[in-house]
Order: sequence, then C-alpha cells, then structure tokens
Amino acid sequence: MNFKLSNPTRLYFGDHAMSNLEVELHDATRILLVYGGKSIKKTGLYDNVIGILKNLDKSVYELASVPPNPTLEKVYEGEKICKENNVDYILAVGGGSVIDCAKAVAVAARYEGDIWDVIKHKVPVSKKIPLGTILTNSATSSENNYYSVISNTKTEEKIGWAIWPLNHPEFSIVNPKFMVTVPIEHTVYGIVDIMSHMIENYFHNKDIDSPIIAIQDRHLETMLKYMIELGVQLVNDPTNVELRESIAYIGTQALSTHSRHMLEGDWACHAIEHAISAVYDIPHGGGLAIVIPHWMKHVIHRSPLKFEMFASNVMNLVKGDETDIEFGLRGIMAFIDFLKTIDAPLKLSYYKIDNSRIIDMVEKSLGSQSTIGKFVNLNDADVHDILNACL
Amino acid sequence: MNFKLSNPTRLYFGDHAMSNLEVELHDATRILLVYGGKSIKKTGLYDNVIGILKNLDKSVYELASVPPNPTLEKVYEGEKICKENNVDYILAVGGGSVIDCAKAVAVAARYEGDIWDVIKHKVPVSKKIPLGTILTNSATSSENNYYSVISNTKTEEKIGWAIWPLNHPEFSIVNPKFMVTVPIEHTVYGIVDIMSHMIENYFHNKDIDSPIIAIQDRHLETMLKYMIELGVQLVNDPTNVELRESIAYIGTQALSTHSRHMLEGDWACHAIEHAISAVYDIPHGGGLAIVIPHWMKHVIHRSPLKFEMFASNVMNLVKGDETDIEFGLRGIMAFIDFLKTIDAPLKLSYYKIDNSRIIDMVEKSLGSQSTIGKFVNLNDADVHDILNACL
Repeated sequence: MNFKLSNPTRLYFGDHAMSNLEVELHDATRILLVYGGKSIKKTGLYDNVIGILKNLDKSVYELASVPPNPTLEKVYEGEKICKENNVDYILAVGGGSVIDCAKAVAVAARYEGDIWDVIKHKVPVSKKIPLGTILTNSATSSENNYYSVISNTKTEEKIGWAIWPLNHPEFSIVNPKFMVTVPIEHTVYGIVDIMSHMIENYFHNKDIDSPIIAIQDRHLETMLKYMIELGVQLVNDPTNVELRESIAYIGTQALSTHSRHMLEGDWACHAIEHAISAVYDIPHGGGLAIVIPHWMKHVIHRSPLKFEMFASNVMNLVKGDETDIEFGLRGIMAFIDFLKTIDAPLKLSYYKIDNSRIIDMVEKSLGSQSTIGKFVNLNDADVHDILNACL
Repeated sequence: MNFKLSNPTRLYFGDHAMSNLEVELHDATRILLVYGGKSIKKTGLYDNVIGILKNLDKSVYELASVPPNPTLEKVYEGEKICKENNVDYILAVGGGSVIDCAKAVAVAARYEGDIWDVIKHKVPVSKKIPLGTILTNSATSSENNYYSVISNTKTEEKIGWAIWPLNHPEFSIVNPKFMVTVPIEHTVYGIVDIMSHMIENYFHNKDIDSPIIAIQDRHLETMLKYMIELGVQLVNDPTNVELRESIAYIGTQALSTHSRHMLEGDWACHAIEHAISAVYDIPHGGGLAIVIPHWMKHVIHRSPLKFEMFASNVMNLVKGDETDIEFGLRGIMAFIDFLKTIDAPLKLSYYKIDNSRIIDMVEKSLGSQSTIGKFVNLNDADVHDILNACL
C-alpha cells in the first residue's frame, strides 16, 4: 500500500477564527477579494472584511458575482485583474464555488498559457498566488483540500482538477456563526454535498479487511451517521450555531486530503451529476441527492457486502430475517427517507429536466473513458439506466 | 469550540516511499544526516541513503549516536556542525528519538541564543533548517507532528516542546519494510508508545456528547482496538510486513496533529514517565506500560464513565451484572492482560528502580505546577501513590 499525505492548510475553526486574518495576511499588499452574490453584503461580512483590509492598508481588488457552478470566464476575469494589478494574495469569501474559482485564479495568475489546459489536460504547474479563504457555507471541503471544479459553459464541460499539495489554501477561516444565515435550500444542498463525498469514498475498491482501510471506513461511518442525525436537526433549526458548528467541522473533514488519502472512491455519481449540471446548470447538491440513491440501487446487486455495512453502520439498521440484498436495499430506502425528511430533491423533474438530452448527459458522464466508477465500473448503458431512473 | 489545524508534513508511505527522496532534497546542498546507533548500518539503510546523497552530489555531515532519550548535549553538537558548515537541510534517519533530536537541531541552527531556552521557556522562534525524516521504528508519531522531547542530563529534566506548525518535518518517508528488523523489545515499546498517545488524548476533559468530540473518540477507539489485535500478532510474528504496515500507519496517525487537534488530553502519565526516565534513563515505552495501568486504577473512581467506554469500545467487553466501576476495572484488567501478552514491563522493579528517589520523581512529574492531568487533576500525593503502586 503506497500513498502520500499532506494537509497543509492552516484551518482556523470557531468564533475566534477571524482574529488570525491579520497575521496570515502580514506579507500581502495587493489582495484580490473573490466572492459570490449579495449574501456577504447582506450579512455584513463584506463590510467586516473590507474594513479589516483597509485598516491594514492593503490594496483591494474585487472579483464579484462568482456563480454557483464557477465558470472559466470568471476565472479569466480574475486572472486578468491579478496580472494587471500585480495581485500578491487572493482572499476568497464564500462557499465552495467561490473557493474553487479562487483556486483556479490563483494558478492562472502565475501561468503563461491558458488555465483551461491546466484544468483539462492537467498540465503540470508549480506556482500560484497564495490563497486564503473565509468559508460561509459548508459543503465541498474545498477550504481544506486541493480540489476544484470549473465549468466551461461553451463546451458544456464541468471538470474537477487537483494539484497536490499546491492547491491547498494557505489558510481557511471557518466560523460556524457565518453560516446561520445560509438559506434552507443551500443548507440542504450543503448537507447532501458533504455526505456525497464521504459516500463516494466509502464505496471504494480497496480490501475492506485491511486494518488501514477499515480504520478509514469506520471513521467515515461515524461522520455519516452524525450527518444524518444532525442534518435532520439542522433543517428544523437552521439558526442553531451548535448544529452549524458540528456540521461545519464534518464539512472540513469530509473531503479533506486527510480523509481520502488511501481510498480511491467510486466517484461515478459525481461524474453523472457534473454531466447533468454541465447541461442544465442545476445546484450540485440537488443533483447528487437525485443521482446517489439510483446509483445505489443500480450497483447493489454487483457488490452487496458494502451495502450491508452501510445499512447497519451508517443507517443504524439491524438485519432481520432477510437476504443480504434485502437488508442492503432497506439501508438504501432508509437513506432515501432521510433525504425526504430534509426536503432534498429526488427526481430530475424537480428541475424540469426530461429525457430530451439524456444521450448528451451519458456522453458527458463518461467523457473520454469507456467506464466510470471504481467500486463498480459503469458503461454507457449503465449510466443511461441510472439517468433514466432519475427522471 | 475553537481550534487550529494544519498537518503540512508530506508523508510518503509504503515500499515506494524512498523514490520521493530525490525530489524532496532538490534544493538541499549541504545535508546533516542525524541517526542513532548501529542498526541503520547493520540493515544497510545507512549505505543506501549515503549512496543516494552522494549520487545527488550533496555534501553530507553526520550527527551519529543520538541516544534513545535524546540529550541537549547531542542537540548542541548538531547545532555546532550546522553553524560551522552552513548546513541547509537536515535528514533524520531513525525512530522518534532521532527525529526529536533533529527537530531541536533544526531550530537551534537558526537561533542565536541557547536552544534550551526555546525548549524550556518556550521562547518564540519562527525559523529553522528544513527537515526530512526516514522512519525506522513506529512509536512517537514525531514523523508526522510538531512535538519533540529533549532530556537535559545535568538538570535531570525531560521536556516536551512544540512549535506549530514550524516543527512539522517538511517530509517523512515511512516504509514498513525498514521496520521488520526492529528488535522485539523496541517493537513492544513502540506499540505501547503509539497506544499511550491515543490513551492520553482519549482521556480528555471535553464534552463527550459533542459530535465533534465523539467523532474523534470513535476514531481513537477504532485505532486502539486494532493496536490490541495487531500488537499481539506482531510480537508473535515480528517480520510480518503487513502487520508492520498497519501499525506504522496507526503510528503516523496516533499523535499526528490531525488526531489531537481539539482534544486536550490528560498527559499525566507522560509527565510521570518523563520524570522516571529523567532520573533513571529507562525506555519511554517501558515506563509508560508501567505507569498507565496504575494511573487508570487511581483515577477511575473520579470519572468512571469514560472507563466504561474504554471497556466496551476498546477492550471489546460486554457489561454484565456489575457496577459501572466494576465494569471499568474489568476493562483496565483486560488492558493489563494485553500488556502481559506482549511482554511489556509492568513494574519499575523490572528496571531495578526502588523507592529511594520517589520524592524526586514526584517533584519532577509536577515541575512548577501544583497539579498535572486534564482528565483528572493529580496533586503530589496522587502522583506519589501512583509511583508507589508502580514499584
């Protein structure tokens, strides 16, 4: 077993986290502030951050209106600002989309060619502008890992890319109090997103009897079990800071470099969801809530054992007088019940998506590969079946 | 809840790990090799590393014979070599003692004053020579954290110190194959040391009902449970690479920055053991095996709940018709049985230590504090009782 592991991001967690901003930005002089829509202006966080930066005599540039599925166009826009103004630090204030966009801008600003080549063809790079983040919504773990997802609206591609350890933010500030104002819909998407990353890694193709793998499986089970308990509580009490705190903590760990260092997860659900939202631009968490249960039902017959573990160790069910498959299916149904309880979408029709572009979505799911998924290999017919069941 | 977390060490794990050495040392020109006794010469690792460094045209200096409890004198010796020869990289090849010594040398070489002031009085520093490690024995997690323990033989002090994140090694190479030659006695001490760090953190003073804390408690329980299973197997089959691999993995995690980021563990057992080995220079793992069970028996009456969890979730016992204390005590007895099975020492008389310097050891355990231990505060009378039980 060979792996490499480093989780260098300096994560500051808690309601005192912002007090570390000044020290972290000590050497920064020309800062690009990257953010999304109006929410950080409404909550006062924008004014708060700008006030701190002005007090510290920093020059501030802005890349605003980063969309939920961050686009290549927005990355180019940020790159231009950085290059024209000799920006020497990037500060992303927002959720996963804003951070993902900022990661791409940070690399683009120190790269001579087209950043899309780096994202798409994985051209090796070794330089970037240092990046700090202030997280406002827990979902992607982007604040604590080296992954980023960028959408090219022209080619209808949504590509995940990663440069280890370069694309780890230098620091991230995670204050659960900033999250109590997240609208309920995005809170639900965040819960699904956090869980989806752990589910993807939980359904890996490694030997589950290896102690090293089992230790990580048990850790993922514990966090998933808490997400189910806390997720239901949070949608009923979205301003509860303690619930936000626990979920924000799991959010930093779910897809941290640390949590996935040896597991090659399945990631077929993400490939399919990326294809759906590349075509229809729907929220990532919403797409995942629809795809995951249908993926589970499709693959359980090929590898039932892990679904038994999911049923007992995550969904907390006790096996009765039933077959392995029946028990595993009961676990999947319990997971669907959970998704219903938190009001997650369960069908693509929720987003008014019909079967008219299903072939496009199958093609985009597979990209240039003949199969996707490590836990179970899916070919185009499999993906077609899963998408059909999602309609 | 506020915490900060960064685990920047680039950990290369597995039998291909050494292939990363060249890239990691790319910018190094004058390297100080730090190592212990004859074992790395006997196994051929010394020749292997020297061969690689010579091939890369590096100038190599050596700090050899680092003792098991690394001394301040040895640190001064390394500091002198670095300063006289403009050493720009330190490579530690050995176990926790060698790495701890190298961490101190790395800081001392970039510090004008006396390194003992940094270690003892925690004088802030921000510079060091970069440090890489090649681990030959899993025990302290020093390869993956920012802690170090240095002994001052003149003042009979053994002090743990930490600078976050500066004292994290830049990289660590962990190849379980290098560990199959570790003598059985040191293998046992390593097992105890790895477990002791998790036990110290497991017995913390945080709210065990908090999901954030519970997630970490469950993770520690899983790793401790595997250590008991794998530890017994390894002492019966010490050249088994798969067993070495699993234990080496847990070894990198047990006291990693990641595993303890929110828990303020008890650490009274370590304070007491440091006092014992400051006076008698016994192996750290041996001292811990003796102290921990007696510490457990001493404190269980003040906080039985966590000991019930230990009995069921770590020692795998089922509560019968017995009181909480009786069940917790049964867990402690099962832990002692495990220590007996792996042939760990259980009494100070094993090292020919009697009660003649017990007052010194009590004093050194407490240092300048009136109590030690976060889970249960111990005063000098408590420490005296525990040491007396250890005789």
